[in-house]
Amino acid sequence: MLQQLFNPSVLHTLDLIGIFVFAISGALLAVRKNLDVFGLAVLAEVTGLGGGLFRDLVIGAVPPAAFTDLGYFLTPLLATALVFFLHPQVERIQAAVNVFDAAGLGLFCVVGTIKAYDYGLSLTASATLGLATAVGGGVLRDVLANEVPSLLRWDRDLYAVPAIVGATIVALCIRYDVLTPFTSSFAATVAFVLRLLAMRYHWRAPRAWNRRSTVREE
Amino acid sequence: MLQQLFNPSVLHTLDLIGIFVFAISGALLAVRKNLDVFGLAVLAEVTGLGGGLFRDLVIGAVPPAAFTDLGYFLTPLLATALVFFLHPQVERIQAAVNVFDAAGLGLFCVVGTIKAYDYGLSLTASATLGLATAVGGGVLRDVLANEVPSLLRWDRDLYAVPAIVGATIVALCIRYDVLTPFTSSFAATVAFVLRLLAMRYHWRAPRAWNRRSTVREE
Amino acid sequence: MLQQLFNPSVLHTLDLIGIFVFAISGALLAVRKNLDVFGLAVLAEVTGLGGGLFRDLVIGAVPPAAFTDLGYFLTPLLATALVFFLHPQVERIQAAVNVFDAAGLGLFCVVGTIKAYDYGLSLTASATLGLATAVGGGVLRDVLANEVPSLLRWDRDLYAVPAIVGATIVALCIRYDVLTPFTSSFAATVAFVLRLLAMRYHWRAPRAWNRRSTVREE
Repeated sequence: MLQQLFNPSVLHTLDLIGIFVFAISGALLAVRKNLDVFGLAVLAEVTGLGGGLFRDLVIGAVPPAAFTDLGYFLTPLLATALVFFLHPQVERIQAAVNVFDAAGLGLFCVVGTIKAYDYGLSLTASATLGLATAVGGGVLRDVLANEVPSLLRWDRDLYAVPAIVGATIVALCIRYDVLTPFTSSFAATVAFVLRLLAMRYHWRAPRAWNRRSTVREE
Repeated sequence: MLQQLFNPSVLHTLDLIGIFVFAISGALLAVRKNLDVFGLAVLAEVTGLGGGLFRDLVIGAVPPAAFTDLGYFLTPLLATALVFFLHPQVERIQAAVNVFDAAGLGLFCVVGTIKAYDYGLSLTASATLGLATAVGGGVLRDVLANEVPSLLRWDRDLYAVPAIVGATIVALCIRYDVLTPFTSSFAATVAFVLRLLAMRYHWRAPRAWNRRSTVREE
Repeated sequence: MLQQLFNPSVLHTLDLIGIFVFAISGALLAVRKNLDVFGLAVLAEVTGLGGGLFRDLVIGAVPPAAFTDLGYFLTPLLATALVFFLHPQVERIQAAVNVFDAAGLGLFCVVGTIKAYDYGLSLTASATLGLATAVGGGVLRDVLANEVPSLLRWDRDLYAVPAIVGATIVALCIRYDVLTPFTSSFAATVAFVLRLLAMRYHWRAPRAWNRRSTVREE
């Protein structure tokens, strides 16, 4: 379905852009954690490709795309080189990086949902895997860097909700048979804009009801 | 074999109960770690479904049951909602939660072993995957919460041993061709009771021989 | 190809030796982290088998070799027993353990690359999976022990580079159709010797360019 809906080369280019910006965030975290150049490369690869790799293992698409497309493998290394030499400059344009990261989030939740559905999963499972595609790389990045995944922390701006909304729109479009390049782009754009708004206005998810402060804040 | 041995709807109900109590433990840890509501949901899903997901990926049962059965996916969300609104009450009945968790442990080590054997693995590998099914979700929960898995810590009551015993009994029953609903229930019950006793009497596993206290206790 | 190139029983013995020394390093870390005997066994299994398990899941070789070969499963338990009773002595011969670990690194990067290529992956992907086979177990070990993987840390001697060089030599040999037992052994030896030299002369990978010390060193 992905192949019919979209021009393959357009889709591939978008994919590479998404991988690139995710990889940038991985490499930047590696610099902050004081890792060496291989640490940068590993976190860049894991952040860029981890979500899709998890999805492909679950749906049985082996070998996963991360290992069959040379461009997917090389793109994070490009991000590594960039951050290695220019990390102060990249840090300075963190706002721009965040915008691209939001674009990657929107793109991956849509692509992930469609690919999972192509492999015969139910709509709910497909949307879940769309979410996992979008956020999985970041979770693996944080686990490897020995931090609580920022996805799960209450003091970070909403990240999962935009991806959930995007994946849900795609699932609904499939359900009502109106999935087109236009509606797919709409879903990705909604996720993208929601993430931008969440960063702009510091939208946060609630913690558990009546959360008492008897536990040390971390 | 699972289908022949057990009434499918009984087995499914037991599965959902096991997933539910595991998910409760995941959501409670998320509350203690001060995560937001998505953190609760992610840890609930991972704890409830992670062990079975790992087993299914290893035996090649893709897509894994966690992604093909809507009930499996929704049950942890129910646990999340419960903990989100009522976590002080749930904490207060921690003892009851622990009993259910022990029941889940007994059930999952038996079901995991049988399912792995159904997919053609050897008896030793099947018992190992039964153990992994029972304890895998908890290990993933602790890794995501950035803690040393409580399974591995010497200052926690025995958790792996009951599951190992249960899985081994099942493997022996298969070996001697006496696996029936009765012997399977027996194996699950033994694991369940052993875990209850381990909690009641604080049974612990030994640390390495002659463990000297030159290392900082953590 | 692996079967044609090498005497199966020789290869299997080498495999078991590699798993054994990796498992020793996992069990020793568990002792240092003060884990109980199950913690030792889990870290030993994960360190010895984790890299190959990841490779097999990615290339679709399910059930993975780790679950089909009883020797693979039992070898880490042997390492666990040894470390459990004799860890002060094993610590004292840490230098010897490191030499064996280097041998395991050389062996696994070669075997991993060839096995991935056998399953139809491209040369780049095969070399990457060779690297993952060699270092994956150690990364999983450190994640479970709640530490930043030593592979990624700038203050550790080079570990990835020898494996990358070994895997690359194998990939080049396949490319130019000169893969023989001799060239394979050569690749493994190069990786082995490079790792020994890295430990001897404390070779380290660079951190990001112009790394300023404004971030807390960890």
